[in-house]
Amino acid sequence: MPGMWPTLINDTFLRACLRQPTTHTPIWLMRQAGRYLPEYRATRVKAGNSFMGLATNVQYATEVTLQPLDRYALDAAILFSDILTVPDAMGLGLSFGAGEGPKFAHPVRDEAAVAALAVPDLDRLRYVFDAVTSIRHALKGRVPLIGFSGSPWTLACYMVEGGGSDDYRLVKSMLYGRPDLMHRILDVNAQAVTAYLNAQIEAGAQAVMVFDSWGGVLADGVFQRFSLEYTRRVVAGLKRSHEGQTVPVIVFTKGGGPWLDEIAAIGADVVGLDWTVNLGAARARVGSRVALQGNLDPMVLFAPPGAVAREGIAVLDSFGRPQRPDGTWDGHIFNLGHGISQHTPPEHVTALVEALHRHSRTLR
Amino acid sequence: MPGMWPTLINDTFLRACLRQPTTHTPIWLMRQAGRYLPEYRATRVKAGNSFMGLATNVQYATEVTLQPLDRYALDAAILFSDILTVPDAMGLGLSFGAGEGPKFAHPVRDEAAVAALAVPDLDRLRYVFDAVTSIRHALKGRVPLIGFSGSPWTLACYMVEGGGSDDYRLVKSMLYGRPDLMHRILDVNAQAVTAYLNAQIEAGAQAVMVFDSWGGVLADGVFQRFSLEYTRRVVAGLKRSHEGQTVPVIVFTKGGGPWLDEIAAIGADVVGLDWTVNLGAARARVGSRVALQGNLDPMVLFAPPGAVAREGIAVLDSFGRPQRPDGTWDGHIFNLGHGISQHTPPEHVTALVEALHRHSRTLR
Repeated sequence: MPGMWPTLINDTFLRACLRQPTTHTPIWLMRQAGRYLPEYRATRVKAGNSFMGLATNVQYATEVTLQPLDRYALDAAILFSDILTVPDAMGLGLSFGAGEGPKFAHPVRDEAAVAALAVPDLDRLRYVFDAVTSIRHALKGRVPLIGFSGSPWTLACYMVEGGGSDDYRLVKSMLYGRPDLMHRILDVNAQAVTAYLNAQIEAGAQAVMVFDSWGGVLADGVFQRFSLEYTRRVVAGLKRSHEGQTVPVIVFTKGGGPWLDEIAAIGADVVGLDWTVNLGAARARVGSRVALQGNLDPMVLFAPPGAVAREGIAVLDSFGRPQRPDGTWDGHIFNLGHGISQHTPPEHVTALVEALHRHSRTLR
Repeated sequence: MPGMWPTLINDTFLRACLRQPTTHTPIWLMRQAGRYLPEYRATRVKAGNSFMGLATNVQYATEVTLQPLDRYALDAAILFSDILTVPDAMGLGLSFGAGEGPKFAHPVRDEAAVAALAVPDLDRLRYVFDAVTSIRHALKGRVPLIGFSGSPWTLACYMVEGGGSDDYRLVKSMLYGRPDLMHRILDVNAQAVTAYLNAQIEAGAQAVMVFDSWGGVLADGVFQRFSLEYTRRVVAGLKRSHEGQTVPVIVFTKGGGPWLDEIAAIGADVVGLDWTVNLGAARARVGSRVALQGNLDPMVLFAPPGAVAREGIAVLDSFGRPQRPDGTWDGHIFNLGHGISQHTPPEHVTALVEALHRHSRTLR
């Protein structure tokens, strides 16, 4: 039982998600708790220099989640975890080699492996929910806590490929050659992701985000049937209100620009955008139905601080004044269009956040 | 002096590029001469198992260019070469490690290296022009020959990164931090690419294609200034007519879907599309101004032949009947949205080409 929560002090992020008035544009950064921060690297050493050692330890996961908030005036925290915890709980055997991406010991590549897949016992993900509750308390109401999961399709990519991929050959071979098997994987994943996110909400997550990191590798027409449809089912199954509070849902498809209107129609409160999308044009198309999150290229953070501030401000200006001439509000949450690079100079993030907070107040 | 050319027998590809009537939809496949063909691998062994050994030898380059035409009823040949020949001729030292991508021994990363860049002496690319002439003769007029180059931005990516990249950190750091240096590289590249493609046209290329393989990694607004503008300069500088024949120009930006209208406006005859773009919607937007090339996901070729044929036909149907109700024609050239995978079963390509030729005749 999570117990009594501290009173939320800065609700700007939640307000922007719900297209309510805000005093400034809220900011958070994908992968904001991560290797670019020396304090993160120090905690990771304590955890045996292991990513999953951090993620499965409630104390460490709490510690690293809060680190970027102590350094920067961010408007939301995001659970420190991985998008692949769900297939790991299905028994696929997740590991992270030194300097490598994730690997599954038991990829799902044939009919028997697909038939054996099942929604995992959520008790195997207890460490995630415990971390959510711990972080929510440790935040002391400073900012809201975002929970997250990979999308059914993105999880399926890793489950079939067994890790990252350049060409998605194995998963697309199954998709085109045995669509029945692919639909079965996606169906199991959608059920599992729905249960997983609802358990995060019950554990204390105040918003949830679905990362469709690999939706953008699909062909037009295929994306809609094999990625978006299953994300839609997840969104439809989520608790949208908990303990009297609305729980916003964010959907982010990397490379999803071609399908913006369709993504905005699946019932999420917020659509995440990568940097290839013109934010002002996206707002004109869907901004009266969903809030928009994004969309700075994380590589901008390698420019000198003055250029970083300038590019960040250009994103704010592209969205424009969130209040419409008729007095209603559209929602913008500033973010990167992808996770922050491990090589990012931390002081450049300081310059970004300061410039954004300052400039966004002038847009009200 | 290339001399007298054989009479062109199958001009379907050129006609489609110029939005003229055609009896069927012409087909060619990016990287159609490549490792998925056993006969290619055999020639490569003769060339010391070296990619550049093939590309720099006129006889071998001619041989491998014609191999896919002997196997499949393709409607165009494309010069066997690499997009990085131009920076190699600039002295950057191109090499291909075993099983690896391209590497430059001398990447361009600082002010001195940028200042030293110059349009290369075209004599250093003589092997390319000799191959073009040799292939044009060897084709005996069966189908037209396409020449090509990387775009100024795509070349710059490799020149600064020194090879492939996951995040384009070095080239984007220069772009955002020292845009003056990036513009100088792009200016030199645009001049070099223009001269290089014009020399290919003089040597016998009957159409030319600019591969902007990495334009899609740029942010909206940045793409237009750092990629599209320099491709536009190349297109503006090309010989569009040679020896009394129109020489069509194709521009392909992988991931360029968000900027389709802008790409279609730079003066090319044909715009290449990847598989994320809805071909029918693209035609409705720009099909009366440019022909469209694409856009099957190359991973479809790993499905069984029946599914391959079905997905290929779906691409044709998405474009629809090329003749408009008013009697004028739009142009469609069938292609993949990226190079064919080296792991592709060659007999699946047979199924694809046969199905496309058969079905596309029913659309007339």
